[in-house]
Amino acid sequence: MALVVQKYGGTSVGTTEKIKNVARRVARTKDAGNDVVVVISAMAGETDRLIGLAHELSELPDEREMDLLLSSGERASAALLAIALRELGYPARSFTGRQAGFITDGAHTKARIKKIEAKNVLDALKEGMIAVVAGFQGVDELSHDVTTLGRGGSDTTAVALAAGLNADVCEIYTDVTGVFTADPRIVPEARKLKAVSFEEMLEMASAGAKVLQVRSVEIGMKYNIPIHVRSTFSEEEGTMVVPANKDMEDVVVSGVTYDKNQAKITVVGVPDRPGIAKALFDPIAEANINVDMIIQNVSQDGLTDISFTVARTELPKAIKVIENVVKEIGAQKFITDDTIAKVSIVGVGMRSHPGVAATMFDALADEGINIIMISTSEIKVSCVIEDKYLELAVRALHRAFELDKEGS
Amino acid sequence: MALVVQKYGGTSVGTTEKIKNVARRVARTKDAGNDVVVVISAMAGETDRLIGLAHELSELPDEREMDLLLSSGERASAALLAIALRELGYPARSFTGRQAGFITDGAHTKARIKKIEAKNVLDALKEGMIAVVAGFQGVDELSHDVTTLGRGGSDTTAVALAAGLNADVCEIYTDVTGVFTADPRIVPEARKLKAVSFEEMLEMASAGAKVLQVRSVEIGMKYNIPIHVRSTFSEEEGTMVVPANKDMEDVVVSGVTYDKNQAKITVVGVPDRPGIAKALFDPIAEANINVDMIIQNVSQDGLTDISFTVARTELPKAIKVIENVVKEIGAQKFITDDTIAKVSIVGVGMRSHPGVAATMFDALADEGINIIMISTSEIKVSCVIEDKYLELAVRALHRAFELDKEGS
Repeated sequence: MALVVQKYGGTSVGTTEKIKNVARRVARTKDAGNDVVVVISAMAGETDRLIGLAHELSELPDEREMDLLLSSGERASAALLAIALRELGYPARSFTGRQAGFITDGAHTKARIKKIEAKNVLDALKEGMIAVVAGFQGVDELSHDVTTLGRGGSDTTAVALAAGLNADVCEIYTDVTGVFTADPRIVPEARKLKAVSFEEMLEMASAGAKVLQVRSVEIGMKYNIPIHVRSTFSEEEGTMVVPANKDMEDVVVSGVTYDKNQAKITVVGVPDRPGIAKALFDPIAEANINVDMIIQNVSQDGLTDISFTVARTELPKAIKVIENVVKEIGAQKFITDDTIAKVSIVGVGMRSHPGVAATMFDALADEGINIIMISTSEIKVSCVIEDKYLELAVRALHRAFELDKEGS
Repeated sequence: MALVVQKYGGTSVGTTEKIKNVARRVARTKDAGNDVVVVISAMAGETDRLIGLAHELSELPDEREMDLLLSSGERASAALLAIALRELGYPARSFTGRQAGFITDGAHTKARIKKIEAKNVLDALKEGMIAVVAGFQGVDELSHDVTTLGRGGSDTTAVALAAGLNADVCEIYTDVTGVFTADPRIVPEARKLKAVSFEEMLEMASAGAKVLQVRSVEIGMKYNIPIHVRSTFSEEEGTMVVPANKDMEDVVVSGVTYDKNQAKITVVGVPDRPGIAKALFDPIAEANINVDMIIQNVSQDGLTDISFTVARTELPKAIKVIENVVKEIGAQKFITDDTIAKVSIVGVGMRSHPGVAATMFDALADEGINIIMISTSEIKVSCVIEDKYLELAVRALHRAFELDKEGS
């Protein structure tokens, strides 16, 4: 008997018919002799609906209030799935983030899990029940307020719970059949990968692939929980996210990913003195805004320009912070650009294959695409480009690295 | 400086525009120098939407799960109102039922408040904040699961919180301008009452008037909290619910109310022996189903028929219970009727004016309406009739007691 954690995303529970479908799938897993814990997202569109309501009321809604607001969606779908399972004759019990024992830090809207006190869930399993856990949420260890784990946070709920319960596998059910070499909506030739390493998945997720939340992959890697990404709507095997192996390392590039949720801020005329980067980026970190790439121009006459990228959705918040910072550090002004996007290539094989970045730059240049910013890691190269060229760039890179061919 | 508890119903917060309107009203109360606690319902239609989803999954959804499901609506609107208040520049903080300290018994879907530990709310007031409390919900004192207080439960949240905080007044904002002599949609001549006694309001609410939840009136009466029922959409004074006074007692009948959410169950061929009523009604009470009227026919040949009414929405649950009970007590069968309704007249003056019931029966007979069941209290007479005659009956009674005339 295995312990299986299954996570179903919003599109998998978008209607009551789909919730019934999920219930039948969960029931089959239970019938096969497994203990089953289900982590559930809000019904498709629900989180966006709630965000929309909040933004009709305020451009920058308070984040503590946003967390209370948004957590309601997962609670509702957890209750609905428990109802559907009981209707099929399977004892089931729903748990909120609090009840499932998710204790987080106080970083509202993107809290990190500090610990999981999963006693209630374990008790339910011991009673032979199916445990249904509302994803995406926890409670602040100090204030006991509701917190959420950020977009895609239910993935992290699932993998963290799988780690906490020492589960045999964490299955992530979604509306695609696995992890692809590129987004099939942009590249029709994209192939589904049978397996991908934790490190690659991490870079792909950071680079904008929406399949798994970054944090969930980090936790899977740390606790070595195999993650099976697969479709709710078919029996087809999906993609296993597992530790890297020899086969994977023979492949130079595993996939091309992109991120449209990008914006650039350039602070112009920054006095070039020690500590200036700290003065600029500390307030941004304190406002809980993630900075992705940073570029500092060569200094001229003691002044320099610093550009950095943030999520486009966080641009209004970042602007509020930067307005003050520009005055405090005595910079001339700042300008923003929200018409950029990031395209990335990822592969563990890069470590042993030089020249990959050059191939990427060539492929983009051949299409007349200007590169605005570059960042690299051991197994990833990312370029920021004008967002209007994004689809063209993804297709060009998929072709340049021959990703349509098996074992490329 | 007064402490004011305001409760806004679902229609008052049905859209973000309406939430902004509520925020402005709350702000004006704060500006007038008051401490303000706001209790908020789910956005109009939200609770019904969630109930609809649950019923698409199960005819009799588990009540623990229903409570988790339904509580999400009020949480969302509390967060939204706090966001709207902050946007107006007023510090505000939302509280779930748990955070506001509502401890209840374990009767899911109609829990009763056991105590309120309102420390968090008081702390917020001390900090000069407006406290926004999600209505309708609490947590089970033993399991710590989410419970709800039943339809209209936000009224009870508000009045109980007003009692717990020793507030000066509890204002119930709704989509009508007060308590009327009858439903103006049925009786165009219906008048708004300036004041009504707690006892009358209690009977009216029990008799189906939707203005206030019964339990909220009980609590208001017990702790002597004046309740001001008024409209969210106008400045007009509403109806004060207060202790009875001499003026009220001169009025024989204050209003006509009705309840369409009625169904009748008749258990046929019940062996007429001591303890049979207990055997019949104990299981119904254990299933947490409220029985309203009960009639037992004269016994013939040691057998009798027992009829009773329940809320129509609870009929499926009641049928499940009665199916077993009929076998256990050796009755012949049971029949149900969900085409009935209840019409009632209420007035503290009835105590000192005999003949009121007779006037009611005459008025119904004059319209050819058959009375199926009757029940009376000191200040109320209720008749169950076929539901198709309901509007006719309400108009006939309003006319018979001359309720269109001031001081009638």
